[in-house]
Parts: sequence; structure tokens; C-alpha cells
Amino acid sequence: MIDFKTKQQEYIDLFNSFTEKELSRLASMSPRSSGSEFMTQAMSYSLIDSGKRIRPVLCLEFCRACGGDIHKALHFALAAEMIHTYSLIHDDLPCMDDDDYRRGRLSSHKKFGYANALLAGDSLLTLAFEEMTFADVESGKTVEAVNVLSGAAGFRGMVAGQVMDLENENSAADIDCVRFTDELKTGEMIRASAMLGCIAAGADAVKRKACEDYCGNIGLAFQIVDDILDVTGDFALLGKAVGSDDKSNKSTYVSLLGVEGAKKYADVLTASALEALVVFGEEGDFLRQLAVNLSDRKK
Amino acid sequence: MIDFKTKQQEYIDLFNSFTEKELSRLASMSPRSSGSEFMTQAMSYSLIDSGKRIRPVLCLEFCRACGGDIHKALHFALAAEMIHTYSLIHDDLPCMDDDDYRRGRLSSHKKFGYANALLAGDSLLTLAFEEMTFADVESGKTVEAVNVLSGAAGFRGMVAGQVMDLENENSAADIDCVRFTDELKTGEMIRASAMLGCIAAGADAVKRKACEDYCGNIGLAFQIVDDILDVTGDFALLGKAVGSDDKSNKSTYVSLLGVEGAKKYADVLTASALEALVVFGEEGDFLRQLAVNLSDRKK
Repeated sequence: MIDFKTKQQEYIDLFNSFTEKELSRLASMSPRSSGSEFMTQAMSYSLIDSGKRIRPVLCLEFCRACGGDIHKALHFALAAEMIHTYSLIHDDLPCMDDDDYRRGRLSSHKKFGYANALLAGDSLLTLAFEEMTFADVESGKTVEAVNVLSGAAGFRGMVAGQVMDLENENSAADIDCVRFTDELKTGEMIRASAMLGCIAAGADAVKRKACEDYCGNIGLAFQIVDDILDVTGDFALLGKAVGSDDKSNKSTYVSLLGVEGAKKYADVLTASALEALVVFGEEGDFLRQLAVNLSDRKK
Repeated sequence: MIDFKTKQQEYIDLFNSFTEKELSRLASMSPRSSGSEFMTQAMSYSLIDSGKRIRPVLCLEFCRACGGDIHKALHFALAAEMIHTYSLIHDDLPCMDDDDYRRGRLSSHKKFGYANALLAGDSLLTLAFEEMTFADVESGKTVEAVNVLSGAAGFRGMVAGQVMDLENENSAADIDCVRFTDELKTGEMIRASAMLGCIAAGADAVKRKACEDYCGNIGLAFQIVDDILDVTGDFALLGKAVGSDDKSNKSTYVSLLGVEGAKKYADVLTASALEALVVFGEEGDFLRQLAVNLSDRKK
């Protein structure tokens, strides 16, 4: 049995150190300007933090579990995290969720101003795709990875989920509607991040299918636990305001199923995620523990 | 001598018809949702219009002039125009330039609301990179094209220019500062759009260098003429408010050089653009007329 916490921290450390090195390298490329320096600062502020790095960890671990070299997946992992980070910056803007805090620190627009936060998000989204072109893999893999990530992040994926999330505010959305919204808003990017690892490793169709099933289940479970923590968690652990869903009268898994019902639903999904990993045998151990860990988390 | 206006219109018609077809195709891909349908509508509103399509025309014509098949450059041309369009939507937002009109119609946030306009811009930026992956060219060319376009659009290019443009507002920027800002804000995307055509065609280093020189000159000249039209143009022709630069006390080529001085500067740049085309011989005829046309335009 692997030591899950140690392995997870190894991935996070590897990823964070790669991220800092890459940001410096990209910032030193020409043309340099006051604009590029300011944007580097704003992008770094949001990108370099103490987050759980779930998407990069999934990308790297699926690459490894499919027999690939994780160092070849690092650029893809960073691209996925850049897109996730841009989405948080834009989500926090006054015209969207209007959140002043994120992970215990001022949100980007509180720190740098509205227009600059908008542009920092745009910068990260754009840079994600540039970053992918530096991956040391065959061009065909990079093109496939760009296709998968842009498809998941764009108007049929994450952005569609954000639009629906806005529609659902102050409306009585039912459980199917809430689930479909989450599948798009959160699930698509989780699936794509893991898939980028499979692509880097040249995984076969069976493993890709297992990856999709696993991610579909942990993605939803993750969001359900988020909703539960919004009710039962506290600011000190979460680093963000609690009770925000309740404030906006939004339908959530908790408002629709109750805390106990939501917990049971998350457990069912986590069990399905574990089932999907059978094809990986022992190589799926870390992913099994990750699924359980995400479901049991307190922050 | 080619008939410039006819050829230009041919390019515009080809591009517009391709754009409508592609948007339908992309919108029909799964998963479909109320969010994706709304975003398709908002993206189409801004993307399908009567614009000059300068970036796509440059992409297609450089592809042709370098011996390539323009149909292989269409996906790249559309990607460039999607990124240009997203930048206009975000530029018009209240936290940026706060413009109610664009090309004679309501700007995106006036039509769809603040949050949805933000997301429509995000959708277009993301979709641009997905679109590139559908180009019928070798994977290596697509990866290079993604690298060039993301580099030009991101924090070292267009976005840096937007940040500097905000910095220059209400400050007494000198001519070097205004020029560097424009090179980033407008020039980089014009250069990249043309370069995508060269990449699709597999152009050699000499032609790529000529392309960069030509674009550097027409890009600046274009922006100078924009500043002149902001003073001398009228709403009916331009489809947007005039005098907006003056209102914000922003340094422009006109405020720094006067209308006549700015016109002379644009002429010098246009002459340099024509010089850069020598290597193309007769194949550069359309590009020559395009440079003169952009410099002499009234809207």
C-alpha cells in the first residue's frame, strides 16, 4: 500500500516548483513591457498558492498509471490549472459571484482592481494554450490535448456550466438541473485534466474509458461535498465565506437532499469511482485513496 | 493588376460563410445545454457582423502568396478573428472602456448583460484554440500556430497592450510609449494572423521575415488612422462614438503629432510596408493595395 499523503504532497511539490520555474521562463520571453510585468504579478498571485491542485494531480497520476513519464505531462497539468485559476478569477468578479476572498486571501479584483483582474484571467486562459505547445511530446498528442482541454473549458463545457449556474440563482432548479450544471461547470475540467495525462501517456481506449467514468463520479462527489462544507464548514478551514449558497437562495444538493442525503449520494458516487478503477489493478491504488480522500475532506 | 475590392470581398464572403458553418457545427457537438445555446447566440452576435475582417484576410492572403491552399488556413483565420472579437467584447465592458456601441450595434454587455458578455468573451477565446485543432494540416503546423497565436494574444502581447492602454489613460504618455502600447495591443494580433497564413503554407524564413516587417508597419499605420478617424470621422460611418480618446485625456498620435503629423507618420509606415513586400514580386499586389487602402480608409 502506498503512503497516499506523501505521494500526493510529492505531486503538489513537483507541480508547484515546475509552475514557478515556468512562470519565470515565460515572463522573461520578449517582448517585455510594464503590461507583461504587471500581468505576471497578477497571474502569479492567483496561480501560486496553497491549493489542493486536484487537476494537476489527476493529470500526473493518470499519466503514470497509464505507463507514461509524468514529466511529459507537466506542461499539460499546468495548462489545466491555469484554466481552473482563470475561471476562479472571473467567477469572483463583481459581475459574477462578487467574492472578496478566495482561499483566505483577497480575490484578484480586490487586490489588483476590476479591469486588471479581468485581464489577468484572460492572460491565464491564453497562456494555458501557449504552455501546452512547450510539452515534450509528439505534435499529434499536443493537438489532441488542446482539443480536449479547450472543448472542456469552453462554451459546451465549463462556461456553459457557469451560465447555467447564473440561471439557477434564485430559481428552483431540480436535482437533474443542478447535476447537469455541475457536470459542466466542474466535471468537464476534472475529466479533461485526467484525460491530458492519458493522452501524454498514449493510453489505450479501455483506460481512457475508465478514466472518464472515474472522473465523472469524483467530479460530482467533489461538488456535493463542496455544497455540504458550505453549510457545515468554517471560514478558518475553507478560507472563504460559508453559507454563500444559502444567501442566494440557490438550489444545492444540500437544499434538495438534506445534509445526510447529500452525503449518501456522494458515497454512492465514490463507490462507482472505485469500481471504474478495476482495470488499473494495483496501479489504481493512489486514485482509489484520492477518491475516498476527496469525499471525506473537511476543506 | 488584380481588382482589389473584388478579391477582398471574395475573401470576406468565403470567411463569413465558413464562420457561420463552423459555428453551427461546433454548436451541434455534445454536450448541448441551455448554457451552450445561450453562449452560441452571444458569440454569434459579436462574431457574425459586417466587419472588415482584416486579420482573416491577412491570414488567407499570406497563405496564398506563400504558395499555400487558403482552405487549409480557414480554421486559423477564424481562430484569429475569434480572439479579436473576444478582445472587443471585454474591452467594451463597463470595467474597461464602458462602450455601449460597437460597429453600430449594442455592445455585448448591453445586449446580454455584464456576466454573460464576460463569459461570451471567455467562450470565444477558448473556442479559438479548439477551432485550430480542426485545421487540415500537419500536427506540427497546428502546434506552431497555437504557439504563435497564444503568444501574440496573451500577457506578453495583446493583453499587455490593454494593460498599458489603461495605464496611459489620464497620463501624459509620450510617442514611444503610445507606439509600444499599440504594437502590443493591435500589432501583435495583426502580425500573428498573417503569420498563421505563412505557417499553413509552410513559408520559408525570408517570406516570414517580410510578413513580420509588412505587418509591423501596417499595424501601426492602422492604429494611427484609427486615432485620426476618432477626431475627424463620424458616427454614421464608424458605427461607434467619436471623440472618445479626447474625452479620456488619453495621449494619441493626433494629440502628440497633430492630424497632419499623424497622417504623415502613417504614410511613412505604409511606404515601409510596401518595401517589405519586394520579395513577393507580383504575388504581393493584393497586399500592396491592402496597405494603401487601410491607410486611406474613412471608417
